[in-house]
Amino acid sequence: MELFPSVETLRVSGKSRPNAVAGAVAALLRTQGQAEVHAIGPAAVNQAVKALAIARGYLEGDGLDLIVQPAFVKLDLADEERTALMFSVRKIQLKA
Amino acid sequence: MELFPSVETLRVSGKSRPNAVAGAVAALLRTQGQAEVHAIGPAAVNQAVKALAIARGYLEGDGLDLIVQPAFVKLDLADEERTALMFSVRKIQLKA
Repeated sequence: MELFPSVETLRVSGKSRPNAVAGAVAALLRTQGQAEVHAIGPAAVNQAVKALAIARGYLEGDGLDLIVQPAFVKLDLADEERTALMFSVRKIQLKA
Repeated sequence: MELFPSVETLRVSGKSRPNAVAGAVAALLRTQGQAEVHAIGPAAVNQAVKALAIARGYLEGDGLDLIVQPAFVKLDLADEERTALMFSVRKIQLKA
């Protein structure tokens, strides 16, 4: 029995397609209510934000929207510590 | 009497200092409860997101936090239409 299910993490790069990431975010929010998006560097952060803006449109037809809280997080990549931006994303009901 | 006060907008560039923008965002949220942040291009978007992450730390001592909703917005700059990313930022009470 999993009392504290882990939040699914999506890692976005500067080459990620915003529409594809948006679809993944929307799917996670519909099924799990929350998601985390990690991005390192300006290009990746830009793609992540675009994806979140697009995901809001995908959710709108379901009467849903999302809210985001950005934070810094340290990631270990190939034995090197990098500071990433992490977006905690949660589902909310769209106001009628 | 202003029934619908306009939301203050901060325009962030790739050269904006995240700490300074964070201070401005925190001040607007404390006094007005909301703010908008506009950014055009990956470098500016990256600085804006860093600023929002930092602002959360500034607000924490006041028992406050922020939530963000990103969207695309068209801006007229020097007679040229550019697509910017707009962050609608709202103040929330930090959970005890």
